[in-house]
This record gives sequence, C-alpha cells and structure tokens, in this order.
Amino acid sequence: MHPRSLRDTPVTSVLLTNGDIDHIAGLLSLREQTPFSLFATSEILDVLSENRIFDAVNREKVTRHPVALAQDFDLQPGLSARLFAVPGKVPLFMEGNDVRTDLIGEQTVGVRLTGNGKVAYYVPGCADVTDAVLKQLSDADRIFFDGTLWDDDEMIRSGTGIKTGRRMGHIPISGPDGSIVRLQGLRAAKTFIHINNTNPILQPDSPERAFVEQSGWDIAHDGQEISA
Amino acid sequence: MHPRSLRDTPVTSVLLTNGDIDHIAGLLSLREQTPFSLFATSEILDVLSENRIFDAVNREKVTRHPVALAQDFDLQPGLSARLFAVPGKVPLFMEGNDVRTDLIGEQTVGVRLTGNGKVAYYVPGCADVTDAVLKQLSDADRIFFDGTLWDDDEMIRSGTGIKTGRRMGHIPISGPDGSIVRLQGLRAAKTFIHINNTNPILQPDSPERAFVEQSGWDIAHDGQEISA
Repeated sequence: MHPRSLRDTPVTSVLLTNGDIDHIAGLLSLREQTPFSLFATSEILDVLSENRIFDAVNREKVTRHPVALAQDFDLQPGLSARLFAVPGKVPLFMEGNDVRTDLIGEQTVGVRLTGNGKVAYYVPGCADVTDAVLKQLSDADRIFFDGTLWDDDEMIRSGTGIKTGRRMGHIPISGPDGSIVRLQGLRAAKTFIHINNTNPILQPDSPERAFVEQSGWDIAHDGQEISA
Repeated sequence: MHPRSLRDTPVTSVLLTNGDIDHIAGLLSLREQTPFSLFATSEILDVLSENRIFDAVNREKVTRHPVALAQDFDLQPGLSARLFAVPGKVPLFMEGNDVRTDLIGEQTVGVRLTGNGKVAYYVPGCADVTDAVLKQLSDADRIFFDGTLWDDDEMIRSGTGIKTGRRMGHIPISGPDGSIVRLQGLRAAKTFIHINNTNPILQPDSPERAFVEQSGWDIAHDGQEISA
C-alpha cells in the first residue's frame, strides 16, 4: 500500500495478543496522528486504558475494537481472525507476589488467521502446549509459534536473567514437553517466532539450529515474507 | 565503561527533563534488570508512577531520585546537575481541553551541568526564551538548545501536523522571537538538539542550515562527542 501522506504508514490494523511491554510499547512509536484500527481482547485493551501514556495514541484516529474470544472478525479485507486463549500470565509490570503461568483467559491469546482458503496460527507466547492448544492448532496450514527459549533455564545459565522460560510464560523448544515434540504430529508448516537473543537457534552453525531445521521447522527472520 | 555482564549497559544515570513520550518511553527499552539511577522532578516521577507500565523498570534495580528545582546534585562522580523551570506544558497524553504552554514548574525543565570547571546547559524543550531563561543561561560555556522546528507553522505547512511549534512547547529557531535572535548575546558555544525531521536545517545544502551555521550554532548529530 502506498502512503497517503508524509506521516502515513501502510499499517491499517494492529492486533495485540498480549499486554506486556514487548507487545504494546511499539504503539508509542506509531503516535500520534496515524490512523489505524486496534484490535485486542477487553482485558488487553484495559491495560492500555489503565496507562494514560497510551492516550497519546489518539482514539479519534485509532479506533479501539474489543474482540471476544472464539469470535471471527475481519482484520482487513480478505483476512479474518479469531482469538483463542493459551496458557500464560499477566504482564510483567502487573505481576503480584504470586504469579500463575497457567492462566487461560484474555491476557495471553493466539490468533487463527484465515484467508485465501488457508489457515495460519500466530502464537507468540504460550506457557504450555496443552491438549487444548494442540486441538486448536489441528486445522493449521502454517503455525507461527513461540520460540523464545531453547531450554527452560537458558537465561539463568547465561547470566542474563533469573527466571525460567515457563515462569516468563514461554514453553521451551527442546525437551520431552517442548514445542517441537508436542507439535510434531501436526501436518502444518511450522515457523518459530519471538526468539530471544539468548536462543542458540539464532546462531547459524549451532547444533540446536540444525536440530530445529531437521525437525521440519523454519526460523523466522526480519523482513521475511511467506506466501500461502 | 566496560559492561559488567551480558545484559549490562554503560548507563549509570538517567535524568528526565520532561514526562512526554519522547523523553520517557526509552526507559521501557532499558528494562528490566539493568541497574541505574533515575533522576527527575517529583512531578515527572509522578507521571511514571501513574503509568504502571513503568513498574517494569524494577525499582529495586533502578532507584528513583526526586530532585527539587534549583538544587545541585551529583549525576555521576565529577558531574553536577541543577534543574530549572522553562516555559512548557504537560505531556501530550495528559493534555486537557485547555492547554497552557507557558507553565513554569516541574513539568518542563532545563539542566545546568557543571564539571571540569565548565558550565553546560541542556534544554531540549522550551516554549519561549523569556528574560528569566536568558538570565539563567548567562554563565554557560556551552548550550544545547531546543531545535525542534525552524519556524512555528512548519508542520502545518508540510502536512505533517496540525499544531504550531509553540503549541507543542517548542520555540522556533527563526524569526525575531526565535532562539537564534534571543540567544545571540550569549558568549557560549551553542548546539541545536531535539531537531524534528521536518526541520530544513537537517538538509545538508539548505539555506536554513547555512544560516544557522553562520549564526555560530552547531547542529547536533547522532554519535556526536563534544569535549569541554
């Protein structure tokens, strides 16, 4: 799409799947007069409302659309979306003393996208691949899935953090309960997204990357385009 | 300074002079376990407190130091700072129906920096160069000053905005009340900072840039280092 003015962008819709910083802070770079439609669950939109800084995203230009789970809606012409809950947690900045990472609700969702007769899933955060998640993904042609960490204590071991992946709401790629093993029965093409910079699959020559590719997964990269 | 660990940064102190997005949103990129000291007026720190998203900037790692106006404090060893009010306004996302741009208080401040026997001023936003501002700057060896716009209706003319510079809290560079004319009596070396991307002084061959340089001002650029 061509820009319509000097400060325009080709972005017509934004869909939030989570209320944490890495999902919402980018809105502050799209301010302040750029029109687009903003879709999210009511609970995620509440996070924005509770933080007045997001009032800079002008509600007259950026319409906020609350979306219920399990309800189809048009993200843009020809592209339909449906949200579903996956195991997760509240945003880091809203954590209390006790943090549950198995919440099933409106705080962490995946997206089922349909267009051109194809079905794709986008799941950037998922604390556990439950049987319900597997069942949801069963009609996928393509899955974009949470590839944050290779293994659960990677950040602790590398001295870059004090939490496990699961504690952060991200199932690891490796291991008997990891995403590769859990999703291996699905016929879909599979791509890891949301990859943390400690994850060895980002290293071109790593055995972990080789394993991921041998397992039939792609590893997303900036600027990537995928045709259905 | 050398990093002390993989996720370390050489940043030891952050000083906020304003509570608007372009001043505070960067804090969200420094999260979440990077220790530094955060200095600002109480009113600017209140803006952070009122937006829970900034709780991601862990208060146990990032100590928040409220600083009174006209009070010297150590920003880091050998570098002393003092805040002073300049004409300005509340952050965009806190604007009500009536917006005053001549507020003198804790919402928009300049900084007087002293070290090595030299005095520098850092003033990224200033809606008007009043006589009080001029008097404050009179002992400067170097001034870094608000260079947002060349002239007041530049964004309106270019179709990139609907507000004048003064309405946004920024005095223009040009014109009889602009910063070049108002500051011309000061002996300090002068550098424009906080330059909007509509400002013609950013164009290498523009007459506006030539005029600025002929008037004895520098134009700041990314990565610039200045020795006292």
